[in-house]
Amino acid sequence: MTNKLYDTSLSLLTDLYQVTMAYGYWKSGTSEKEAVFNLYFRKNPFAGGFTVACGLTNVIGYIDNFGLSKKDLRYLETLTGSDGQPMFEAAFIEYLANLKLTLDVEAIPEGTVVFPNEPLVRVKGPILQCQLLETPLLNLINFESLIATKAARLRLVAGNDTLLEFGLRRAQGVDGGMTASRAAYIGGCDATSNVLAGKLYDIPIRGTHAHSWVMSFENEQTAFNTYADVLPNNVTLLVDTYDTLQGVRHAIETGKRLREQGHKLSGIRLDSGDLAYLSIEARKLLDEAGFDDTSIVASNDLDETIINSLKQQGAKIDVWGVGTKLVTAYDQPALGGVYKLAALRNDGGNTSGLAWDYKMKLSEQAVKTSTPGIQQVRRFRDERGFLADMIYDQSQTHGADENHNYGSIDVTMIDPLDFTKRRRFAADQDYEDLLVPVFRNGECVYDKPNIHDIRARVHTQLAQLHPGVKRFVNPHSYPVGLERSLHELKTELILKLREG
Amino acid sequence: MTNKLYDTSLSLLTDLYQVTMAYGYWKSGTSEKEAVFNLYFRKNPFAGGFTVACGLTNVIGYIDNFGLSKKDLRYLETLTGSDGQPMFEAAFIEYLANLKLTLDVEAIPEGTVVFPNEPLVRVKGPILQCQLLETPLLNLINFESLIATKAARLRLVAGNDTLLEFGLRRAQGVDGGMTASRAAYIGGCDATSNVLAGKLYDIPIRGTHAHSWVMSFENEQTAFNTYADVLPNNVTLLVDTYDTLQGVRHAIETGKRLREQGHKLSGIRLDSGDLAYLSIEARKLLDEAGFDDTSIVASNDLDETIINSLKQQGAKIDVWGVGTKLVTAYDQPALGGVYKLAALRNDGGNTSGLAWDYKMKLSEQAVKTSTPGIQQVRRFRDERGFLADMIYDQSQTHGADENHNYGSIDVTMIDPLDFTKRRRFAADQDYEDLLVPVFRNGECVYDKPNIHDIRARVHTQLAQLHPGVKRFVNPHSYPVGLERSLHELKTELILKLREG
Repeated sequence: MTNKLYDTSLSLLTDLYQVTMAYGYWKSGTSEKEAVFNLYFRKNPFAGGFTVACGLTNVIGYIDNFGLSKKDLRYLETLTGSDGQPMFEAAFIEYLANLKLTLDVEAIPEGTVVFPNEPLVRVKGPILQCQLLETPLLNLINFESLIATKAARLRLVAGNDTLLEFGLRRAQGVDGGMTASRAAYIGGCDATSNVLAGKLYDIPIRGTHAHSWVMSFENEQTAFNTYADVLPNNVTLLVDTYDTLQGVRHAIETGKRLREQGHKLSGIRLDSGDLAYLSIEARKLLDEAGFDDTSIVASNDLDETIINSLKQQGAKIDVWGVGTKLVTAYDQPALGGVYKLAALRNDGGNTSGLAWDYKMKLSEQAVKTSTPGIQQVRRFRDERGFLADMIYDQSQTHGADENHNYGSIDVTMIDPLDFTKRRRFAADQDYEDLLVPVFRNGECVYDKPNIHDIRARVHTQLAQLHPGVKRFVNPHSYPVGLERSLHELKTELILKLREG
Repeated sequence: MTNKLYDTSLSLLTDLYQVTMAYGYWKSGTSEKEAVFNLYFRKNPFAGGFTVACGLTNVIGYIDNFGLSKKDLRYLETLTGSDGQPMFEAAFIEYLANLKLTLDVEAIPEGTVVFPNEPLVRVKGPILQCQLLETPLLNLINFESLIATKAARLRLVAGNDTLLEFGLRRAQGVDGGMTASRAAYIGGCDATSNVLAGKLYDIPIRGTHAHSWVMSFENEQTAFNTYADVLPNNVTLLVDTYDTLQGVRHAIETGKRLREQGHKLSGIRLDSGDLAYLSIEARKLLDEAGFDDTSIVASNDLDETIINSLKQQGAKIDVWGVGTKLVTAYDQPALGGVYKLAALRNDGGNTSGLAWDYKMKLSEQAVKTSTPGIQQVRRFRDERGFLADMIYDQSQTHGADENHNYGSIDVTMIDPLDFTKRRRFAADQDYEDLLVPVFRNGECVYDKPNIHDIRARVHTQLAQLHPGVKRFVNPHSYPVGLERSLHELKTELILKLREG
């Protein structure tokens, strides 16, 4: 892993059934059959109108470092079936020992806004290899995209205020904290409290003191003065250990001492109580004492709804510290990404004359029916921003040239859940194809951007979205459709599968 | 970490304010002052009546491996205050470089049922060291206890059915998956799909195949037959790729072939649709064909509420596969554990004559007011099970002997939120003190149980709880009180702090 956190081989970080299927492919002689899988989700999280793609850097690290260790192999040898016999033949273990990934991977760059049904990652190559990656890719993309999206929503309500991530203590494990700090920064936080994330990911870190600091002195004033003496250039005082407004008055006294010494009181922090009332009263006290450049930091179970409400109530808060609700994505702690087989190379066994056999999973619910094809996403745009995304099949050109430039042909996209909803774009409409090459034959060909550039991308991407799509309550649904010939291919395949 | 997942030093896995406070203690000459911190939570998760303590093994690993690396120290040197000057003096970095933890730690063993306000971990020693551990201890205990509790609830509804954890793909990061697999097994799952967790934590692993296996063959029957040929001793077939009941019929055909070959069809798996209806119909089809020993596995966003409902509807399901809702603790993805200063060694500066100065944080909400003291939890019990837990202060004996055996004195415990609610226990009431020594002067003195023993402990502990406490809807509140003299000490301190 390029996130530098893990030492042990993570190549077994997968579900057992990926390994038993791999064994099945190997035993039945189909392990090298070329397949295409798409990783996508079906619904934006938080009842919102968009999602921020994140996690690709860790996916690249995972694939780059893939390779079963001797211990991994020895462990697989110990597994048995219900008869107590080894689950896998020795020759299969040997096959895994020599396995090098030779996949082609395309992906949408981190920091891009994405929508349901769009392939965030597309994996092409031997079906056995594709299958082994299903679980780790889902794990890495689901969580980081979820948290980056949550942070982007917080940034939308925070506007130009400072947004800090304080979640480590209640994150879901060590990596739940580490990865969340990374994704939260990418999504729009300005800094984290997590020192290790600061060190490993080059994220700015911020912090002040806890109640225990105040409690460890005979009184609050002494605690504040001592803190200011020790760290005069970084003084934000937590004022609610005993009585909040009394705490503000003590902070002001310390601020006066700091001034005399040529320093300043950077801020005070509120961590409990009625943040609207207390921040307004604290602001008055600070302003009356001439501390109008001292900022007010607030924390305590904040999320985008509460911040929005506090702003509407006129709360005087400049810095928002967000923890649990951000790093666990409290109101929806999982993104339901899936990874579905979409095509298998036609080895001559079918009569369609096409290079690929298209594959899909049926479901009683249309939303759960997958889309076949070697998918790419074309995002149409004009000078005002993004207009719509069209998912198309790169294996067929349908009259377009090999780059899928449609020349003089207008293109039509069709809503995947309502085929009567269609949009047509002129042949010369400006666009960008979102998936870019990441691996070619197992070699990384992608120039990874740094974390600050990824974060900047989120900002510029969100600026291209219509405000209605970014609304929290009943957001406008950004148009995503299937290119007409892909829609037709999918319809035909559904009808055929339902019959057969 | 003894969980073997991490290589890099995790000693900076803490909030920056722990480091700035450490600097403050060091600069102000109070870093070695002996302190006591308690780690506890205020409310059982999931609106339930109990919590399962978990995470101590990882805490021990963290403390055992504590020590800042050269890279850690170099990173701290790069941090600057608002004036661009280094945040920390070189002598402090030197102090950290030589820092060895010398703490005494007591904790409640993993797998114990615990309740709000009880210290799960108690840390005693130099205040600087105690402070640095706050964030990692909270991170490790909060998450594992949350997931172990969720799994225990699932086990309560599953009864003797098999319970499998399948959550890795939607867990909160790599460790969100790994740690969840461990805690889920401890809480009551029988196995996980997570191969790496199987390898590193000695957890049984289970798995079958995915929809992609079926989709990769020309038809479902061929896919099933091929799978059975390859892994005849481990055949559970996923039947819902195209049409569920048709899938069951195909599985039965494969089952017949298996029989002829001297093997058996272990199970079928349902992953979508109306699980009550489909399992009943599938059971009929299987039984009619003589496959009454073939089990029915169900998965698809299951949690304890849905399993309960399916059972009430007479669903014929023998094996429950639980994923997202378990590993993310979906309906409450964080346990709100806190870590509070409770006492500071009296260095002669007070006139109480006591060895300790008692410390607490006030709050407008009584539930958020911490409890002072060197706390231990005494669990009273009789032959029917657990009766009540009493939190008492180990630094004072109040007429008891040094082991807090009250001899002929009856003991009274008082509800922390309603002082009129009291319980009295006879001097000879049977009891167990829950916190046990884990570290003495930085050395681990605890004989860590293996994961299977921890899991067995959950089972026997839950059997000691009154059924009303285990109820999901409005559970009976298990009695937890403060020993009378601790209650009096706390009351006195609150009144003094409110005055001053």
